[in-house]
Amino acid sequence: MKLLQDRIVADGKIEAGNILKVDSFLNHQIDVSLLEEIGQEFKRQFGDREVNKILTIEASGIAIACIAARYFNVPVVFAKKSRSLNIAGDVYTAKVESFTHKNTNDIIVSKKFLSPEERILIVDDFLANGKAILGLCQLVEQAGATLVGAGVVIEKGFQDGGKRIREAGIDLRSLAILEEMDVNTGIRFREE
Amino acid sequence: MKLLQDRIVADGKIEAGNILKVDSFLNHQIDVSLLEEIGQEFKRQFGDREVNKILTIEASGIAIACIAARYFNVPVVFAKKSRSLNIAGDVYTAKVESFTHKNTNDIIVSKKFLSPEERILIVDDFLANGKAILGLCQLVEQAGATLVGAGVVIEKGFQDGGKRIREAGIDLRSLAILEEMDVNTGIRFREE
Repeated sequence: MKLLQDRIVADGKIEAGNILKVDSFLNHQIDVSLLEEIGQEFKRQFGDREVNKILTIEASGIAIACIAARYFNVPVVFAKKSRSLNIAGDVYTAKVESFTHKNTNDIIVSKKFLSPEERILIVDDFLANGKAILGLCQLVEQAGATLVGAGVVIEKGFQDGGKRIREAGIDLRSLAILEEMDVNTGIRFREE
Repeated sequence: MKLLQDRIVADGKIEAGNILKVDSFLNHQIDVSLLEEIGQEFKRQFGDREVNKILTIEASGIAIACIAARYFNVPVVFAKKSRSLNIAGDVYTAKVESFTHKNTNDIIVSKKFLSPEERILIVDDFLANGKAILGLCQLVEQAGATLVGAGVVIEKGFQDGGKRIREAGIDLRSLAILEEMDVNTGIRFREE
């Protein structure tokens, strides 16, 4: 997605440790008009298939999921990252290791909000080692729901998450795939 | 807001400890079409004033802020709840005690994303003891920005947060105010 690639080049900051900061438009400050373009692109890519619900994970996934949901006309469910006093005991859960935060969280969705007859589209902001997406896929599987596919805004193509998810047979669409990223030479995107 | 009150009565669950669960449409599963009505109502209530940015707090505030931001045509910034490896050191911060989770978090916004010339609208899903909104107000004050007002979806009118915020001179608009809430007798809303 050209508009997104241009924005990453203009406003993204490459930092040591293979970290790309896009906190000025995607995951701290949020450019909602960019998210509208992203939501429409997900609709273009997955819109030929029936989707009943969009599943994501807190926190930054929520913004992307909610704007995308407008184009699919479906509700959003977001997985929470640790047990909350406000979540009933009856939950689907998976363990997710975060590349960015270097920790492991339980992710949780109440059983009320995923059911066998539903067709689920997963969306998230980043794909690095793929653990978050794979954790969300486990929740869909536990519910006996159908996974339609997974839409990611930025994939770090030089990490193995995308490969692992595609090899698991999941229809993964990443709107920008970073092939190389270097503090000195910048970003090279994977050709579409 | 009648539509919201009706939805709270239909789908909200009152639980012991003055907890109202609205996780089927507001803060776990999200009815995006309801959020669109909520966003438009905030625009009706604050739209006569200049707003440059909407500020909220993760996680469930993000959904409300992003949909509302479409009607104001402004970016969103969300405060994060604890120091992340991905946030630069240069941050505004405040301490917030959570009524729901019975804990205290540091909330953080990068200094890059709040500036003195900006006019900020705060939005959040719930107002109970008011600590989250007051924490966000502190961030706005630290930045030297102008606080336009605060928009809340559900205010627990029987707790003192709303009173405290209004007494601080903040223009607070709550779309549904719970005057009484009881497991047996249900909800009574404050008259508008």
